[in-house]
Amino acid sequence: MRSAVPSTLLSRRDLDFLLHDWLRVSELVERPRYAEHSRETFDDALDLAERVATEQFAPHNRAADLAEPTFDGQRVRLIPEVRAALESFAETGLLTAGLDASVGGLQLPHAVAAACFTWIQAANVSTSAYPFLTLGNANLLLAHGSAEQVDTYVRPMLEGRFFGTMCLSEPHAGSSLADITTRAEPQPDGTYRLLGTKMWISGGDHELAENIVHLVLARIPGGPPGVKGISLFIVPKVLVEPDGSLGDRNDVVLVGLNHKMGFRGTTNTLLSFGDGGHAPGGRPGAVGHLVGPPHQGLAQMFHMMNEARIGVGAGATALGYTGYLKSLAYARERPQGRPVGAKDPAAPQVPIIDHPDVRRMLLAQKSYVEGALALVLYCARLLDEEKTAPADADRERAHLLLDVLTPITKSWPSQWCLTANDLAIQVLGGAGYTRDHDVEQHYRDNRLNPIHEGTHGIQALDLLGRKMTMHGGAGLTLLTSMIRETVARAGQAGGEVAALADRLAASVDRIIAVTRRLWADGDPVLALANASVYLEAVGHVVIAWMWLEQLLALPPEGAGDAFHAGKRQAARYFFTVELPRTGPQFDLLDSRDRTTLEMRADWF
Amino acid sequence: MRSAVPSTLLSRRDLDFLLHDWLRVSELVERPRYAEHSRETFDDALDLAERVATEQFAPHNRAADLAEPTFDGQRVRLIPEVRAALESFAETGLLTAGLDASVGGLQLPHAVAAACFTWIQAANVSTSAYPFLTLGNANLLLAHGSAEQVDTYVRPMLEGRFFGTMCLSEPHAGSSLADITTRAEPQPDGTYRLLGTKMWISGGDHELAENIVHLVLARIPGGPPGVKGISLFIVPKVLVEPDGSLGDRNDVVLVGLNHKMGFRGTTNTLLSFGDGGHAPGGRPGAVGHLVGPPHQGLAQMFHMMNEARIGVGAGATALGYTGYLKSLAYARERPQGRPVGAKDPAAPQVPIIDHPDVRRMLLAQKSYVEGALALVLYCARLLDEEKTAPADADRERAHLLLDVLTPITKSWPSQWCLTANDLAIQVLGGAGYTRDHDVEQHYRDNRLNPIHEGTHGIQALDLLGRKMTMHGGAGLTLLTSMIRETVARAGQAGGEVAALADRLAASVDRIIAVTRRLWADGDPVLALANASVYLEAVGHVVIAWMWLEQLLALPPEGAGDAFHAGKRQAARYFFTVELPRTGPQFDLLDSRDRTTLEMRADWF
Repeated sequence: MRSAVPSTLLSRRDLDFLLHDWLRVSELVERPRYAEHSRETFDDALDLAERVATEQFAPHNRAADLAEPTFDGQRVRLIPEVRAALESFAETGLLTAGLDASVGGLQLPHAVAAACFTWIQAANVSTSAYPFLTLGNANLLLAHGSAEQVDTYVRPMLEGRFFGTMCLSEPHAGSSLADITTRAEPQPDGTYRLLGTKMWISGGDHELAENIVHLVLARIPGGPPGVKGISLFIVPKVLVEPDGSLGDRNDVVLVGLNHKMGFRGTTNTLLSFGDGGHAPGGRPGAVGHLVGPPHQGLAQMFHMMNEARIGVGAGATALGYTGYLKSLAYARERPQGRPVGAKDPAAPQVPIIDHPDVRRMLLAQKSYVEGALALVLYCARLLDEEKTAPADADRERAHLLLDVLTPITKSWPSQWCLTANDLAIQVLGGAGYTRDHDVEQHYRDNRLNPIHEGTHGIQALDLLGRKMTMHGGAGLTLLTSMIRETVARAGQAGGEVAALADRLAASVDRIIAVTRRLWADGDPVLALANASVYLEAVGHVVIAWMWLEQLLALPPEGAGDAFHAGKRQAARYFFTVELPRTGPQFDLLDSRDRTTLEMRADWF
Repeated sequence: MRSAVPSTLLSRRDLDFLLHDWLRVSELVERPRYAEHSRETFDDALDLAERVATEQFAPHNRAADLAEPTFDGQRVRLIPEVRAALESFAETGLLTAGLDASVGGLQLPHAVAAACFTWIQAANVSTSAYPFLTLGNANLLLAHGSAEQVDTYVRPMLEGRFFGTMCLSEPHAGSSLADITTRAEPQPDGTYRLLGTKMWISGGDHELAENIVHLVLARIPGGPPGVKGISLFIVPKVLVEPDGSLGDRNDVVLVGLNHKMGFRGTTNTLLSFGDGGHAPGGRPGAVGHLVGPPHQGLAQMFHMMNEARIGVGAGATALGYTGYLKSLAYARERPQGRPVGAKDPAAPQVPIIDHPDVRRMLLAQKSYVEGALALVLYCARLLDEEKTAPADADRERAHLLLDVLTPITKSWPSQWCLTANDLAIQVLGGAGYTRDHDVEQHYRDNRLNPIHEGTHGIQALDLLGRKMTMHGGAGLTLLTSMIRETVARAGQAGGEVAALADRLAASVDRIIAVTRRLWADGDPVLALANASVYLEAVGHVVIAWMWLEQLLALPPEGAGDAFHAGKRQAARYFFTVELPRTGPQFDLLDSRDRTTLEMRADWF
């Protein structure tokens, strides 16, 4: 079923190594939730994801970039391949791979479902955004919606008939959700009428589905100001009758499409709620249904946001990974030049992979993308643990660790797998800069990831200002104790692994010392001034941890094959070239540097 | 004449500071070559460049990106604004600003001419590429062409009637020029007939000018193999009659346009020489004229390449600079959120420049782009010194220093002003990712710069393998002694400047130690394996030097204004955040790390 030519989307060998040799996902079948599953059903799901990704998503990746969605004032038009791919995706069951059987899901472990979805993201990140958002929306409603809301909105989404969005930002309120002004007026019938404008809404309009279920943050008049007065509403594009049939068009109007550098196949919209003049029933506003109790909107939305943040990291990883594999394939085939010191100009040219600088660029990419994939799957495995670990304490621990890792899993791949794409372009040289090759598109697509679902700076504030300090520093304690546990195992393994573990242990000490020092005098402005530097340094340490974990899952040195040798070398690269970058970063943090704080706006 | 609103292309204040307070270009008017000039003529030229850049080049920057050149099989079509801008550029004399009066030039110092051109690059780098290539071509022919060739080809180029190209690469030979196969057959009349295919030729076809003068590298049959058998030819698109009138079309055929991620306004072409079936006179091949003696083509082309490499660095700097200024303007105006710790959600939002993380991103950009601009103008000033210093020894010294700095001036801005563009996007957030703002285009345009005119890796080999070792290490000795001279002056200045100088002195010691160590046992493969790391580390030290130089040109602390305070803070930032990055890089080089060398191709 699978091709003999290695895929340039992802490495199945690597996925199998991470899922089985390292994360031991097959052991999950001993838990009741996954009792119907086996290694075989996992393999089948991954085979299927690879096939759908390769056959349905990859072929129109460039076409969707070249022919971005257009809006003629009436309809949004996309190339037809998008709908065809999404129908396949839903039909094969991949859309609901990780969901409960009670809602029609395959109930696969999250680690397996995440690996499946990564194939889709690697093949075509723009088209993957539609089910990505729809699933996030469905999961939120499964957690917080009423049974009726689940029946009316979630089931059609999981059947692929409705799509979903998340509507947070407004033109004047992007990162600052405290400032949203969209209003939700309660109606006698228990519904609400929404009035306001939402910006940057991905998947906000299209004709890919019968309906679009918007999840909208808005204020109920009289509620508290700031984030404490935000509630969450379901606002369907088309009203749904009690029997599930579609009724009138709701007053949700597409004001315009945003035109982006990349991710062009995903519509990104400015939407107006309740200002389109076709309000149902003559009352102004778009009909909305409150989700859960009032004023809980932000907390509810973070259910979706946290999932989305890890998903953004997964998408960034997928783009980095496919760019790496494509530049690797090019480097193996492209002859150019001769080795340093070769004097005979008549000798045949060598493939560029033989040049050390090209190998450096490939090895750097490998260390980034495989390190990032390990982190993404580790988080997915934590989700399984959070949901199904037999002991309460294990579930709580998984929840807390996932909380701490979320900003890192969102931001590290967004930064370093973008760097991988930059290196992929560089390996291809001039060819990489043209639209004849995919790598320039991956680079453009990936540039969105440090921005959406909370910018890099927002993740940094979340990590240093919240995750590392909450519950009296429990997050910091848990993360560092988990890393130290790996270090201890590596120490017992001895040899090179133990030597690398020593370096990681030293980095963990620095995280602890720097975190304490930053918060020592309770000056949050100074502590947070270099939060991004902190995020980047901690992120590098976490990825070094992921590499040490992978090393411990390898067969003993000498017993493995070329794949294992490559893992060892990439780990060495990360520890030798990458981890030392954190030295000056920790030094800067430790000095409680005030350089940016003291820069005055009028000095620029 | 100049607007009261600060330009978002470049900072005239910074240019004046660099050119006058630091580089003291007005003193050049004491030299015979510049005797006709004065501070006033310099100011007029800069005013003019700003005006032409603002009025003629900037307005169609986005339009040229959106409507890239098309080829219908007969003609290449560009938007008409390109021709209009280039006509203005030639008419105003800016095209020949730095050239000899004997060929119609304004004979301005190179430092001033370079500053003028940087305005044009900041406004529209794609349109600027046409005169950029034409000037490089003309300068090469002024140095190596015959008087007749100058009259026939150079004068029309300097009048703006002909444009020029450089044709080096072939489809199978990009970085490896030893492998070019284009053939030049000698003819009884002293001309040659060229047969071959050239790839990546910027400006290779268009209808912007009456003619295109291609400078083509080719082999005369019977010559030595490799780079020693390459000769240089003038191959005009349209043959030029002895009286200067245009004759038949030469056999230079556009095979196709390359479609790029950025730099879209510049045509980039695949050209066929002598394969189009319309060979003049019935003999196959495109008519070419040998430049200088045979087999000297590569050395002659390097005349143009070295100039082009510094020009690439200038273009990268210009893109970084304008991105910085645009993100700065946005950050001053865009309200979003409140300061850390502000509790009142009803308080008005603050401009994002008030957030430390945004200030960090602006300060980083400032330190990169102003550091890069200093280096670019320093190199241009060295060119003046090379050409006009009264003492032979000073001219030779300038020549050698320029030689050493060329790979750094090409590569450092290409890497770090691209990073600046990345930060500019991040400052704008989602808005920065859309085509409604310029920053995403600057990022795409700038991504070409680490590739063309010799990739990053090629510059690294040039610096470590050639420039630092040639003449028994004279380049290394000169560069480090120049930096130490600045350090000594800073030491005398005392205070903070002296403290920063100590850090720079330590970095210089590391450059010397690492260079010696890499070459200690004469293993070039190992020495050059991490050449890119070396290039990046030395580049950062050189930019720190440029910042120390700027500090020494400031008025005493307390005596200056906000501009001077900003310079000081950007220098502090560079020394505090950036220079320490080199520590792990030097450590890696010092350990003669073999990680990439030992990675086997089959392990990927």
